[in-house]
Amino acid sequence: MTKILLLGSTGSIGKSTLNCIRRFSDRFTIEGLAAGKSASVLIEQIAEFSPSSVYLADSSQNKHIRSRFGDAVKIYEGEDGLERLVDEADYDVLLNALVGSVGLRSTVAALKRKKKVALANKESLVVGGEIICNLLDEGFGELVPVDSEHSAILQCISGFNKSDIESIILTASGGPFRLFEKERFRNIKPSDALKHPTWSMGKKITIDSATLMNKGFEVIEAHYLFRLPYNKLRVWIHPQSIIHSLVEFHDGAVLAQLGTPDMELPIQYALSYPERFPMNGKRLSLPEIGKLEFYNPDLEKFPCLKLCIEAGEMGGTAPAVVNAANEVAVESFLKGEISFSDISEIVAYALQTHANKPGDTLKAIEEADKYTRLTVIDRFNLSKVKQ
Amino acid sequence: MTKILLLGSTGSIGKSTLNCIRRFSDRFTIEGLAAGKSASVLIEQIAEFSPSSVYLADSSQNKHIRSRFGDAVKIYEGEDGLERLVDEADYDVLLNALVGSVGLRSTVAALKRKKKVALANKESLVVGGEIICNLLDEGFGELVPVDSEHSAILQCISGFNKSDIESIILTASGGPFRLFEKERFRNIKPSDALKHPTWSMGKKITIDSATLMNKGFEVIEAHYLFRLPYNKLRVWIHPQSIIHSLVEFHDGAVLAQLGTPDMELPIQYALSYPERFPMNGKRLSLPEIGKLEFYNPDLEKFPCLKLCIEAGEMGGTAPAVVNAANEVAVESFLKGEISFSDISEIVAYALQTHANKPGDTLKAIEEADKYTRLTVIDRFNLSKVKQ
Repeated sequence: MTKILLLGSTGSIGKSTLNCIRRFSDRFTIEGLAAGKSASVLIEQIAEFSPSSVYLADSSQNKHIRSRFGDAVKIYEGEDGLERLVDEADYDVLLNALVGSVGLRSTVAALKRKKKVALANKESLVVGGEIICNLLDEGFGELVPVDSEHSAILQCISGFNKSDIESIILTASGGPFRLFEKERFRNIKPSDALKHPTWSMGKKITIDSATLMNKGFEVIEAHYLFRLPYNKLRVWIHPQSIIHSLVEFHDGAVLAQLGTPDMELPIQYALSYPERFPMNGKRLSLPEIGKLEFYNPDLEKFPCLKLCIEAGEMGGTAPAVVNAANEVAVESFLKGEISFSDISEIVAYALQTHANKPGDTLKAIEEADKYTRLTVIDRFNLSKVKQ
Repeated sequence: MTKILLLGSTGSIGKSTLNCIRRFSDRFTIEGLAAGKSASVLIEQIAEFSPSSVYLADSSQNKHIRSRFGDAVKIYEGEDGLERLVDEADYDVLLNALVGSVGLRSTVAALKRKKKVALANKESLVVGGEIICNLLDEGFGELVPVDSEHSAILQCISGFNKSDIESIILTASGGPFRLFEKERFRNIKPSDALKHPTWSMGKKITIDSATLMNKGFEVIEAHYLFRLPYNKLRVWIHPQSIIHSLVEFHDGAVLAQLGTPDMELPIQYALSYPERFPMNGKRLSLPEIGKLEFYNPDLEKFPCLKLCIEAGEMGGTAPAVVNAANEVAVESFLKGEISFSDISEIVAYALQTHANKPGDTLKAIEEADKYTRLTVIDRFNLSKVKQ
């Protein structure tokens, strides 16, 4: 029985993870759950999966958990509650589906305990890639990607030598504004940007997909997961989201992983890896889909992708700065404070003005993160957002 | 140094194989060459690769080899010359690129010597699949596919358990007549049928691609190579020939191998397998290609595919009968004796009228082959073709 600590259990990835655990209740059990504000959903999950420990960021709701379950579940509280949960709970696999750079501490804490981390929180690698790679190199823990793109790559390279890889190509749907003229970007409303053409996801990642920032993050993630330089990482726009990513080998052969756009598959693969467990459900029929299209990304129209790759190549705290500026900008966009095209301008400003530092400590990363948030809030006159 | 015996050296696959050996002259050496009629090409190859032994089906040309190379090369002659070459030469890998069921004896002879066989002669498995599987099961030799489709499948399943495979999907370009109305099939000329839209290949396989017989053969080949029942083998028409085949796993994940349509890659992979050697050359750019299309095959318009699968499911000598009838019919079509649509009618007639027998001996296969040729020549009043 594999014991799982699931962070972000009430979000989209969290719910899909619990579906997977329902399907394989003979193999997986939930040891702990952590969520943000959705107390009522968390309470239902506690009732169904009987975790030993839980954490709710909105601790004002803990009384409801306590009144329903009493001593049957341990509630972690306080500013360091989440980290203590990760540090103390008795689990085999941490599935980290937190949103944002706040997820880094949990990933690091689990790796330090030599746990397997199934990583849906891509920001862990985006902002803390150097820290995580150092831990892995020192023999601490194991990292398995949950993102469909990186799961695809992992599947494509199984059975081959890493040294035979010539390049990795991440596919991107291109988001809802792929065919928009750039002039229209200023007038895009949050409700437009939240309509993703192929994937059903949380709000933050849906906006990041619309700006291609999400793909930029995934390039950085791939750089650290597969240890390839940025000139061997490419992005192709593929509006149908059927080919989830591709690996080119040094003989010119290309392997690709395909599937219907459904996160349950990469989540299950991360949990079952290196095994494959069966899963019922819709099967891919390319004749039914008819055609798959591919384009090069338009970096002028979608500067966020370019900014990410620049920050990735700079290394150090630069990716953390891009991520922090973007987190603030996306929240401001969702609140209607700034336009869609302001997002990339805010990120570009943050990247241009920051003084890069080594990114190999949590302290450096968190300082850059905090400083960037304050800087862009001040410079662009944004209302303060939660950090 | 891997010593290679190359059968069919003057054909399309043979020449590409020699290109590969030129690139890796530090790893591969030619121990023997066999060809059909192209004496002058074979003589150039002997001069360049210095094989110990050669065989030329058109033995009247042997004098030219002898006068040029004297005792430096041993010439195998006579009706059993080819089989003696395979039986006696000192090689590690047999690359069998013969065309037609005549290739079976060589595959069997090499396996009996526990050699690795890189199989481009798909008829070996189509007509002799049971014999070959029995040999492999008894520990005789090893079989690696050269066909781009089966090479693709081999690459997709590397690193995974065979028991996790749910189905295999072979892609087919659909040939030059994919969009023709069936009524036009009667008037197709050999010169039309020899224009393959994506692959440059020999005449026989190009006609087989136009009728989809080739894809039917590949389904039978896949059945024996990967030991899957026919209901787990599918065909998708994919006019661009970029996805070379796909494997669906029992969790719904699909892996595909892609590349430019160039046989040098699967040939090199068969020789280097399970390693991958680097190869320069054109790289795949899906944005450059733009779109990939997929259709279900039209079995009414292309009955040869259906006939093959029927014969495969019948087993025994049925696939040998289909192959023999097709070899005669294609040669008659190329000579202008019959129409394009007669090919499938001749094959259907042969399959319907033959009495199926166990297919686990060379004798049974060769008798069915011979009997079928005589029957269809007689029934359809064809001129006699070489066997």
